[in-house]
Order: sequence, then structure tokens, then C-alpha cells
Amino acid sequence: MKYSQLFTRTSKTVPADADSVNAQLLTRGGFIHQEIAGVYTYLPLGLKVLRKIEQIIREEMEAVGGQEILMPAMTPKEVWQQTKRWDNFDALFRFKGMGEKEYALGATHEEIVTPLCRDYTFSYKDLPFAVFQIQNKFRNEPRAKSGLLRGREFGMKDLYSFHADEKGLDRYYEKVKKAYHRVFERVGFNPDLTYLTYASGGVFSPFSHEYQVVSEVGEDHIFTCEKCRVAVNREILKGNEKCPECGNKNLIEKRGIEIGNIFKLGTRFTDAFDFKYADEKGEKKPVIMGCYGIGPSRIMGTLVEVSHDEDGMIWPKSVTPFHVHLISLGTDKAVLDQTEKVYEELNKAGITVLFDDRDERAGVKFKDADLIGIPLRLVISGRTLEKKSAEWKERAEKKAKETPLKGLAEAAKAFYGEK
Amino acid sequence: MKYSQLFTRTSKTVPADADSVNAQLLTRGGFIHQEIAGVYTYLPLGLKVLRKIEQIIREEMEAVGGQEILMPAMTPKEVWQQTKRWDNFDALFRFKGMGEKEYALGATHEEIVTPLCRDYTFSYKDLPFAVFQIQNKFRNEPRAKSGLLRGREFGMKDLYSFHADEKGLDRYYEKVKKAYHRVFERVGFNPDLTYLTYASGGVFSPFSHEYQVVSEVGEDHIFTCEKCRVAVNREILKGNEKCPECGNKNLIEKRGIEIGNIFKLGTRFTDAFDFKYADEKGEKKPVIMGCYGIGPSRIMGTLVEVSHDEDGMIWPKSVTPFHVHLISLGTDKAVLDQTEKVYEELNKAGITVLFDDRDERAGVKFKDADLIGIPLRLVISGRTLEKKSAEWKERAEKKAKETPLKGLAEAAKAFYGEK
Repeated sequence: MKYSQLFTRTSKTVPADADSVNAQLLTRGGFIHQEIAGVYTYLPLGLKVLRKIEQIIREEMEAVGGQEILMPAMTPKEVWQQTKRWDNFDALFRFKGMGEKEYALGATHEEIVTPLCRDYTFSYKDLPFAVFQIQNKFRNEPRAKSGLLRGREFGMKDLYSFHADEKGLDRYYEKVKKAYHRVFERVGFNPDLTYLTYASGGVFSPFSHEYQVVSEVGEDHIFTCEKCRVAVNREILKGNEKCPECGNKNLIEKRGIEIGNIFKLGTRFTDAFDFKYADEKGEKKPVIMGCYGIGPSRIMGTLVEVSHDEDGMIWPKSVTPFHVHLISLGTDKAVLDQTEKVYEELNKAGITVLFDDRDERAGVKFKDADLIGIPLRLVISGRTLEKKSAEWKERAEKKAKETPLKGLAEAAKAFYGEK
Repeated sequence: MKYSQLFTRTSKTVPADADSVNAQLLTRGGFIHQEIAGVYTYLPLGLKVLRKIEQIIREEMEAVGGQEILMPAMTPKEVWQQTKRWDNFDALFRFKGMGEKEYALGATHEEIVTPLCRDYTFSYKDLPFAVFQIQNKFRNEPRAKSGLLRGREFGMKDLYSFHADEKGLDRYYEKVKKAYHRVFERVGFNPDLTYLTYASGGVFSPFSHEYQVVSEVGEDHIFTCEKCRVAVNREILKGNEKCPECGNKNLIEKRGIEIGNIFKLGTRFTDAFDFKYADEKGEKKPVIMGCYGIGPSRIMGTLVEVSHDEDGMIWPKSVTPFHVHLISLGTDKAVLDQTEKVYEELNKAGITVLFDDRDERAGVKFKDADLIGIPLRLVISGRTLEKKSAEWKERAEKKAKETPLKGLAEAAKAFYGEK
């Protein structure tokens, strides 16, 4: 895409109420636009990143047998009453329709997915199975903050699994644990800084699990065991700091950003909706349930928090809005023609390109490229053209090098790990 | 995908409150599940159809330069007050958050997109441009009905264009008209039954335009001019029935389902948000605006209304949930092994397959295949296996034929018009 066609602009000024690096950089770069505190529009660059994150999550959920569905945001009062959450789920946005009928905006979807799946499940032969969706959630947060980290409307992937017994849930839970690690590595988090973290549980299990990425700006306090590569959230420690897996007492305190969580729900919701199956003997038994969340928009915000420098964002290769940020310098026709040719060649090779074709000074173009944070910048100028080369600058590196124009598409593909 | 893995089931019974063929068949086939009147969950089969429809729309919107964004469903009261619609837009769902702050669920997004685009538009050089989103809308319909045709929460693609002058809007409007015809043809509507229809306009133009598909169950009355291939909605006729393009008075009355509409908004919204640009002389002028809607979920429901028979749905090739409905008959190991092999071969060739691997009678499997409506059914049984063939049955045809197992994937690809 040509930069001159993009309707958004970068901005030098930090929004007054942007209280976090991700809100500042994503807004300045033209990735998001705030509509209400904690409620954002995704602009073309931001939506490309979000969709790539969602697609990685989707692939990994399908790899563990998750079947994708899409539930509505509008949910009826009755289902929340049935689980006794209508009156005590503070974050529910409640509203009325015609005839004074009451609804809530989906803050989570156990109340919808449980009776839904009940309608299609009869005997043990129908179990286990898992469904997921990628959809917006709504929470009436007293104080939305930290850009995409804590929103009032935000993206969520929620997976729900249904089992005949606890053993089945336990097995599936372990599978999802591994799938989550794959998601976080694929979207670009450093596995050495990503911890499966023991957190407070529910009625069914002593613990739930969170995934925490180490970051100085993280809200959570975690204690890591470097032997087991797990952590414990401070909220469940009672002075007795030891690794729940190996008993190691030499835990290290860190700050973390939560990027996912998984729960064993047991029969908390299936009991409420009388969701039972017939076992081999025809006896009715309650279905056992698990739920597993990852927020794609929160992932996007967290990636910016852990991967930026003073000039802007540094996107991981897997979720970058474009593969190449292509720049032509000056108004020399030969340079413009050559850059146009490179643009076409890259596009033809399946390399997505943001081509800064504007009549702007080199400094302006370089500053914008650094802010937007595409991993690979290619510059063509009169000087490089003489040498039949382009300047090759990786966003994460300080120094640029020169690369022959011939074979540029192949080199860019190799940079992205493609043949 | 194997049918035995699919968590949904088909059903013989028609839902009590399903008042339309699309609601009945889509529910019975396991494509959608009603949560509230006019509010549905998309199940795996239904979501696949919806996503294909959305992708066709996306491609055609990008082909006319539309830049995809994603706006939130939560919108602040203030923007609706600014356009004087807070108090008189009956279909708005209004709700309150913390501190008694008021919001509306997006019933349309002019109130969000106009100030958003204003923030990035300064001079005539920034115009024209167009943005679109594919996102759910919410409308407090007094009576939701007709399945996916009139929902309270429903999918919408809304494109908005911004221009320096009326001529620019007129030119773009004509481009979008053509793009809409391409969308409707690609998703599977018969172009001979799809009419650009003159409908009531707004403040800016005497007419708006709808796209109507002829159907006996259509709510709208239209009068078609077969010379110009356009129609007029009854609502704008005042006894004087003639074609607005050629003056032809020989119009034919038909019933239609509206599947899209386009409006020239002029300065209705840009004035409200003081959205101006600087022209060549530096003078401030109001931006001229157009908007263009298509409901992907409504398209899905309409396709069922116009393409079904007494046994079930008949999906167009372009939006079918799977390419092939593969069936093995009997429990003979040789048949099961061969069908498994065909399943793998088709998958490898990029043909998506719903493989009915259940231990069910032929009659049950055939009935389900007819109900689900995948355009191509392939059956392998002891009888076909002897002849090294499969039964080839197209959903839209009455008769089956036999096709050699060898070259089956190529034949299926050719059926779908791929090399």
C-alpha cells in the first residue's frame, strides 16, 4: 500500500490522557483511535496487526480441536439470573429493549455457551468437545486504563471445553497449556520472559493459571521458579513463598502483564443449566467444563509495552502490519521509477509493503518508519541507485547495510523465514 | 472435517418461533442458534458461510479503494447529541456505565466515523478516501423477525466515502454501484433477479438506492424496468409509475428482499462535526460524504430464502461451508478405508470436505446432506467400490452419476471452477 493513500497520519503529540506507552505509540503511529476511555477504533495499520494475532490464536485453537463459533454481544437477563450473576457481576453493562425486556452485554460467555452446547449433547459419545470464538467483550470497568491493556470493549478469544469426567478435563487442560505457550511464542513474546503462573482458583480447583509476560509496567507481582519455568501470583502467596511444582523456595520477584488465563470450571455452569449427559449405562451425569481466555487486543498492547524503543514500536515479524517499509528519497525520476519497480516486485513475490511515496524530507520519512515499527526498512536514493543497491535497515538493529537490488524480494522473504 | 467431530446436530423439528424458511433451515441444519428473538449464535457451519460472504465483500470494497478499520459497538451519548439523533433514533439501545455516563450501541456509525476521519483530513490533498468495517450493529427493533433478515444484533459492512466536492462523490458512488453488483453476483445471487432500486432519498439527493433480490417472501414492493434493469420502490411512487432512467411506463410489480443500500449523505454529518478541509486557495470547505451498507448476515438469510427446496438449503459454490459432502455407506472396512483415503486426497488438493463418517443409515446421511446443502455430494459404498467409482450428486440436480475414484479431486476442483 502506498503511504500517500493511507488515510491516517502519524502524530508527534502524545494524547493528553494516554497513560501508557502502548496507548501513546499506537495512537501516534495511527494504529488506534480512542472513542471513549478504554474503547478504541482499529485503524488500517492496527487492524492488520490485530487480525494477524487473531489468526495465530485461531490456528492454535483449531490444532487442539476447537470448533469456531460466534456468539452475540447481546445476552438475555434470564441466563445471568440462572447463574446468580445478574445482581453481583459488577462489570456487566445492563440495558433495556422494547417492552422493558432486560439484557446485558457479554462480559464473558459461559451463560450463553453452556445452554447452547447442552442443546447438542446427549450421551457420552458426544463428549469431549471444545468450541471457541473471537469476539468483543464489554466490561464496565470503574477505571479503564493502560491503552489496550484494560478496556471497556476489548477483543477476546474464549475457548470452552466439555468433558465426561475430571480426567478428561485434566488431559485437555494440559493440551491447552501447551497450545497457549505456542500462541505466545508465535505472536512474538520471548519464551524466556513468559511464565505459566499459578493464580487463585475457583470452586473446582485450588488454582487457575495465568500467563504472565515480564514487564516493568506490569500490574501483577509474580514470583518465578527458574527451575520449573513457572511463577506464582502474589495474590495466592501467604508468606510461604515456594514453587508449587518443585517446592523451591528461591523464587524471584518480578512484575508481569497477564496475557491469558485458563480455568477449570467443573460443574459451576453446567449445574446451573442442568447440562447432563447419559453415560454408558444410561445414567445422567453432569458435564465437566473448562474455559480458556486470551485477549488479542491486550496481546497487541502488551507487545508494544515489551517491544519498543524511544523512537517507536518494534513489531515481531509474525504480526507486523506490513513486511517492508519502502522509502524513496528525493524527487529524482530515476529513483521514483526504481522504487515503484521494487514495490511491484515485492508485491508480486507476496511481500506486503508500505511504500512511503510522499514528497517529504528523509528525516520525516525515517522518523515515521521508526514510529510505525515494521521490522524491515528498505531505502532507495540517488546514492544507492548508482550502486544498484538499496539500503537495508532492520528496525531492531542500529546499523543499516546495503543490499543489491537484484534478489531483493528473495532476501526479504529469507528475512521473514520463507522460502 | 469429520461429521462425528462436529459438535452440532441436525434436527427434524422446526423451532416454534421460526417464522421464515431461513430461520427454519439454518436452525435445523445446525448453522445458527437463536439466543434472543433476532439474536443468533453462528455455529461452525454457519460461521464458515458468513466468513466467505464477508471475504467477498471485503475484496470488492478493497477493489474500490476502501481501507478497512474496526469501530467499537460502544458509542458515547455526546456524538449522537451532536447530530440530534440521541432523542429521536428509536432503534438505539441506550445504556449507562459508571458515573451515570451514557452510551448507545452502534446502530450505524456515521457518528463515530465522521469525527474520526476529521482527525486525519486537513487539505484537498487528503481527499477523496473511503473507509469500511465489517462489524455487528444493534437495533432495538419492535419486532425482530424473518430469521437473519431483521435482527436486533446483526452483521454489517459499512463503507463511508469522503470527497472535496459533489462531482467526486457522484463518481465514487457510480463505482460502488458496480462493486455492489459484483458482490451480489459473487455471493451467488442471480443477476437477472437483482435490481438496483430507486428508493427514498435524504436531504442531499432525491433518491437513495437499494439493491433488491426478487423473492415471493420479500417485504418490499418494487416495480422493475426490464429495459434499464433497474427498479423503483413503491414507497417513492405517487401513482405515476415510470422508470426514472428511461421514462418507460411498462413497469412490472414484484416482491423483493433488500440486500444493500447506498446513500449520498452530502454534508449532513460533516456539518454536524464541523469537518472541513482547506481547498487549493486555503479556504475551508465542508467535506462531502457517502455511505454504503451491506449486511453479511442478511445476505446469508436471503440466500437461503431464494435457494432451497423442500429438503433443505442449496448453497452457491462461492459461500458453501465445505466443497464436498463425503459419505461412506455401510460398515465394510474396505469402504471405510477407501472413503478415508478419498477424504485425505481431497483435503490435500485444497478441497474442503465434510466427511459423514457416522455409523448411520444411508437415509439419515442423505437427508442430512440435502438439509445442509453443500453443492457436491460424493458417496462411496460397496457397490461403487466394485466399479472403482464414487457416486457424484450435485445438490441442485435431481440425478446422480458415477465418477471414477481416480481423478476425483481434479473433478471436484473443476466443478468449483479451479484449475
